[in-house]
Amino acid sequence: MPLDKSPLDPADWDEFRSQAHRLLDACIDHLANVRMHPWQPVPEAARQHYALDTAEDGKPIDILIDELVSNVLPYSTGNIHPRFFGWVHGTGLASSLLADIVASTMNSNCGGRDHGAVYVEREVIDWCRRCFGFPEGSSGVLVTGTSQATVIALAAARTHALGPQSRRNGIQDMPKLTAYAAEGVHNAIVKACELIGIGAEALRRIPGGPGGAMHLDSLAEAVARDRREGYQPFCVVGTAGSVNLGEFDDLAALADFCAEHGLWFHVDGAFGAWSRLADPPWNALANGIDRADSLAFDFHKWMYVQYDCGAVLVRDETAHRAAFAARPAYLEGQDKGAGGGEPWFCDYGIDLSRGFRALKVWSALRAHGTQAFARAITRNCELAALMAARIEADPGLRLVRPVRLNVCCFNAAPADWDGEAQDALNATVAKNLQLRGEAVFSTTRIDGRTVLRAAIVNHRSSASDIEESVSLAAREADRLARS
Amino acid sequence: MPLDKSPLDPADWDEFRSQAHRLLDACIDHLANVRMHPWQPVPEAARQHYALDTAEDGKPIDILIDELVSNVLPYSTGNIHPRFFGWVHGTGLASSLLADIVASTMNSNCGGRDHGAVYVEREVIDWCRRCFGFPEGSSGVLVTGTSQATVIALAAARTHALGPQSRRNGIQDMPKLTAYAAEGVHNAIVKACELIGIGAEALRRIPGGPGGAMHLDSLAEAVARDRREGYQPFCVVGTAGSVNLGEFDDLAALADFCAEHGLWFHVDGAFGAWSRLADPPWNALANGIDRADSLAFDFHKWMYVQYDCGAVLVRDETAHRAAFAARPAYLEGQDKGAGGGEPWFCDYGIDLSRGFRALKVWSALRAHGTQAFARAITRNCELAALMAARIEADPGLRLVRPVRLNVCCFNAAPADWDGEAQDALNATVAKNLQLRGEAVFSTTRIDGRTVLRAAIVNHRSSASDIEESVSLAAREADRLARS
Repeated sequence: MPLDKSPLDPADWDEFRSQAHRLLDACIDHLANVRMHPWQPVPEAARQHYALDTAEDGKPIDILIDELVSNVLPYSTGNIHPRFFGWVHGTGLASSLLADIVASTMNSNCGGRDHGAVYVEREVIDWCRRCFGFPEGSSGVLVTGTSQATVIALAAARTHALGPQSRRNGIQDMPKLTAYAAEGVHNAIVKACELIGIGAEALRRIPGGPGGAMHLDSLAEAVARDRREGYQPFCVVGTAGSVNLGEFDDLAALADFCAEHGLWFHVDGAFGAWSRLADPPWNALANGIDRADSLAFDFHKWMYVQYDCGAVLVRDETAHRAAFAARPAYLEGQDKGAGGGEPWFCDYGIDLSRGFRALKVWSALRAHGTQAFARAITRNCELAALMAARIEADPGLRLVRPVRLNVCCFNAAPADWDGEAQDALNATVAKNLQLRGEAVFSTTRIDGRTVLRAAIVNHRSSASDIEESVSLAAREADRLARS
Repeated sequence: MPLDKSPLDPADWDEFRSQAHRLLDACIDHLANVRMHPWQPVPEAARQHYALDTAEDGKPIDILIDELVSNVLPYSTGNIHPRFFGWVHGTGLASSLLADIVASTMNSNCGGRDHGAVYVEREVIDWCRRCFGFPEGSSGVLVTGTSQATVIALAAARTHALGPQSRRNGIQDMPKLTAYAAEGVHNAIVKACELIGIGAEALRRIPGGPGGAMHLDSLAEAVARDRREGYQPFCVVGTAGSVNLGEFDDLAALADFCAEHGLWFHVDGAFGAWSRLADPPWNALANGIDRADSLAFDFHKWMYVQYDCGAVLVRDETAHRAAFAARPAYLEGQDKGAGGGEPWFCDYGIDLSRGFRALKVWSALRAHGTQAFARAITRNCELAALMAARIEADPGLRLVRPVRLNVCCFNAAPADWDGEAQDALNATVAKNLQLRGEAVFSTTRIDGRTVLRAAIVNHRSSASDIEESVSLAAREADRLARS
């Protein structure tokens, strides 16, 4: 029983150090020259290197690093490239790379206990609380992203509506809950309703006006109808930046409505919440966000930090804890020592084991300052406006909706093409630009038709990236239409 | 509108590079000398540096790095130190630091699409599938940890039991589900039952024998009684490595029982599942794990990789997808291009945005090989046995239960001390050893009394760490008892 040396620490720390520096250089080269690395398909030869044997052999560290640099590093999602506008994929920060090196070295578990990472996370949450105008005493927790944050928020709303005994007894003998959201609501809300057991249909879709905001009259009617029919309305979900079009509900009006009707007001602010940091007019779009009972948002989208990183804020800490706090004997706290550090984050969500994702947010704010994020977000809005202008100026392209924030949807098919041909052409334009590494747009459906979509959350994109990407799309559409 | 340079990329990449190397050196110094860095409280002076202004200024990169190195890095959870045995906190790997550098550079979003990270994750899942004997075609997804994995598994079991319409309509008009687990079951299962709406009391605790395995007769009685009373039993949760004592259910017998009674068989294998890699006798403890319908486990505990990283495997991919798959228009796939890469991981769980946590597992297996993990896990079991022997040889200490795997609970109070005095003494021993940076034990309650607990998942711990830590506990207990 040889028990003296770790079988998993480097046998030679000097060799490890020198190889780690080599890897870091390769990574910084990649970042500094990111313009040369657009999205590209993973070649079959690289993919074959990913295979793992059941009885995998160990490899020397220099071989591992060669594999990482040659076969893994080049084949990212592509979102770090300045012409990637697909879906809503954040770009990442060089400063977060520094944070990730420290976090990985520390290997903190932020479920609870008394150590540096939990204090850093509290500062990040408190910064967000102030940023979004939530009152002192609000609670929050960092999570993988808005999907998780939404589950936590709706579970808190559910427990608040049905009482703490619903945790013990379940919801099956309880009144049937209903929630309300605009038609452009993100699917994360639907999935959260499914998960917490109230079902997708408990989320009522309220029609909206041309800007996507749900009609208050329709909302009031839906709530009244559900009450008449024996349901228990419990939550209104306001959207701050719809996924398809970057549109906003009238959050202040929804806050009034919820206050009047005794409903929990949740805001889905995945990327759009950060419009608060932008210059006018964009910073006014989310007016009223400070009145939400809960707010879900991401750092990895429009705060540019690395995946995965989001958060939930809850106005009433007691309601937040009522849904999640639980401390069995093996997690009893201590007054001092490693087991101190109350309150523990595990009492604010699902996860007991939690990584130190707060550090990348903290380091980003420390390195760049709030104003640099404000500038970057404003610039993205300006670029979206520029893209819209460029599209409107191109006889071959049509803007599908006015650009409200940072999302721009357009149709590249000839005006006289019918529905399915238009769908196919736009989808093919997206695909071909991706495959040639020229630019990444994604597609979505607006009014039942497939269109091209750019979500600009990329701090590296410049005006010429926008100009050039729109030209490339126009040219490709023209080429396809002729052939 | 100056649109040409990113406000968030380094102004000077050479300076960034040189500072990043300085940081990496500090981190490697920290790891290579980890024995000098036990857990310690965060000094007030360091904590004050964590504060973030609402209008935070940007700081030069060298200042950021000074702050990280001086005020953050030293104050980890302590789990990377060889004498940290508290709770079940994995140690982390130097090789995962390399992986984290690459993952942070790539900034992949693994929710879906066609890029390297998703192929690496598939290989990691397939390696796990083979490791645990699941059949080809089983599905899986990496998550933050077993708490998340449990929610996914129980949601899949719930949807399987109630049918896909339960996603649409909710569970409130459906039969009331009941699940079954041993009394030592982890609280993550309780929290998952609460979250999915069936409630904590739907989880029936089945009494067990001296080794903690639930009695099959009691299980059969409980299931029959619930059926008589109109409940719908849907799931049995087998424990592979109980949190308090490292005990195991008879998984093969539970698999038989579930097959006979048409129940979903979930296994909570957070750390204990990895006993499969150990030498005899430990590798037999989880016999039958290959017959589970779903299995939740962590990499950040007993596979030593950095937080956070766990996974769920599901035998029936159709049942897995039935609970989570959903693809709105803005996530429609493409046959080729960045939007290709089906199936997408977002259809297997809650998260749409997902970091590249697979890379640290992949790199760990590549760097060290399966056998090195087998040796490290075996060595932890040997160390737990050594700790038990050392405790039994010490007249001042009493082993609370036989050690089955890698968890050792003991009582350091004099034999004639009554209950509360014993509780207080053990708790104080734990606290004082932590505060002096000598060793970290946590506490738990066994038979209603507070005892000391060591969970040995630390690849750096040596025989002398065990000997010395037990001696320190004995000495401190003696000192406290006399004073």
